[in-house]
Amino acid sequence: MSQATVDACFSPYLYPVYRNDDNIVVIIDILRATSAICTAFEHGVEKIIPVATVDEAREYKAKGFLAGAERDAVPVEGFDFGNSPFSYMGEHIKGQTIVLTTTNGTQAINAAKDAHKVIIGAFTNITAVCNYLKSQDRNVMLLCSGWKNKFNLEDALFAGAVTEELSKHPELFKLQDAALALKYLYQQAMEDPHKFLHNASHKERLAKLGLKEDIKYCLQNDLTKEIPVLENGALVRLRY
Amino acid sequence: MSQATVDACFSPYLYPVYRNDDNIVVIIDILRATSAICTAFEHGVEKIIPVATVDEAREYKAKGFLAGAERDAVPVEGFDFGNSPFSYMGEHIKGQTIVLTTTNGTQAINAAKDAHKVIIGAFTNITAVCNYLKSQDRNVMLLCSGWKNKFNLEDALFAGAVTEELSKHPELFKLQDAALALKYLYQQAMEDPHKFLHNASHKERLAKLGLKEDIKYCLQNDLTKEIPVLENGALVRLRY
Repeated sequence: MSQATVDACFSPYLYPVYRNDDNIVVIIDILRATSAICTAFEHGVEKIIPVATVDEAREYKAKGFLAGAERDAVPVEGFDFGNSPFSYMGEHIKGQTIVLTTTNGTQAINAAKDAHKVIIGAFTNITAVCNYLKSQDRNVMLLCSGWKNKFNLEDALFAGAVTEELSKHPELFKLQDAALALKYLYQQAMEDPHKFLHNASHKERLAKLGLKEDIKYCLQNDLTKEIPVLENGALVRLRY
Repeated sequence: MSQATVDACFSPYLYPVYRNDDNIVVIIDILRATSAICTAFEHGVEKIIPVATVDEAREYKAKGFLAGAERDAVPVEGFDFGNSPFSYMGEHIKGQTIVLTTTNGTQAINAAKDAHKVIIGAFTNITAVCNYLKSQDRNVMLLCSGWKNKFNLEDALFAGAVTEELSKHPELFKLQDAALALKYLYQQAMEDPHKFLHNASHKERLAKLGLKEDIKYCLQNDLTKEIPVLENGALVRLRY
């Protein structure tokens, strides 16, 4: 195996500057889209169709699909789900196809859709994601969804955790500048990620909405071994 | 005084997402444009006119202006300067107006040109910049020039150093997510910034070009008290 690069992009808006369709792109939206998507696959969902707008999601819903829609951290009225991971658990989603639109995460998926592989990363599947990346001999782009195209702390923290793990294998990976920065950030933050995120803007936003349990859930490692991957416009279970 | 926000933007390309023309914007291009500009003011230059393209710079040169142009870290042929700080020292620049175009820094100045104040920051004037920001009771945007619109380590390190200093005054400043990340990054890196930058891509680029002395120079604190500020399209000495 040769040395692959690891780089990070802090906003879907900035992605065109980094875009290389030979890369594996890891989509990151810790609070809460990518965490919720991983939960859904752990609980047996068959397929998730990410769409950019609420209108598109509504069209699918009218055709009889289960559909989730979140804007500004709250569920949109008239849909089956928002993006709380707790709503993607249970028998009612087993074997189903769900249509999903969120403020940030589905925008990032859309930005990167032409990459070699687009996979979904969260703390809840971090070891599975790292193991997959180590097996692939291919450049890695960690694409943080951020908040309305701005940098956010929790996505950077996760990207830093992945970078830290990949950097243990210098024979496989060479870190680019943004990844090097994330590694330093993670090393400083890792002793107490809850404390690190204490002042994070989106954490404050969710806490105000009474979603502290969601935050706690989304910061747990390895609740699933599933890796959702984009295939023909829909997220399905990665087999490799 | 009320609490002002401190935020950071890692690329001129991303600046439209953060743009707020009520802010003070600090332009950062440590290797080497903003370091060189500070040096020029310390050595008595009267005015620097930043322009986006080499062609514009050439037009000024044809009219008799002193002109500097750098692309891809090397001086453009036919100009008086590149962007090495060492070329902006000495009697020949005293009282002069210089036209300047660089790969990254002058693009960032151009992106932010309508902000309340656009000032030039570098390690070489860091204390002066921080003192000014503390005196202003106004939101601060740290705009990193990066490398061809990508994140770079040395600009982030400087933005982190400013953030760390401002965060000592919680009565004056509240850090936004990107600034919080930079503060952590800086705390981890500060013990040995040279080691931190060891793998930085642009440092490698400059070292290959034999510009190690430039790098050393640009990482020194407080070689000047001058703060260049944009007024009517030209950088002049800030008086406040």
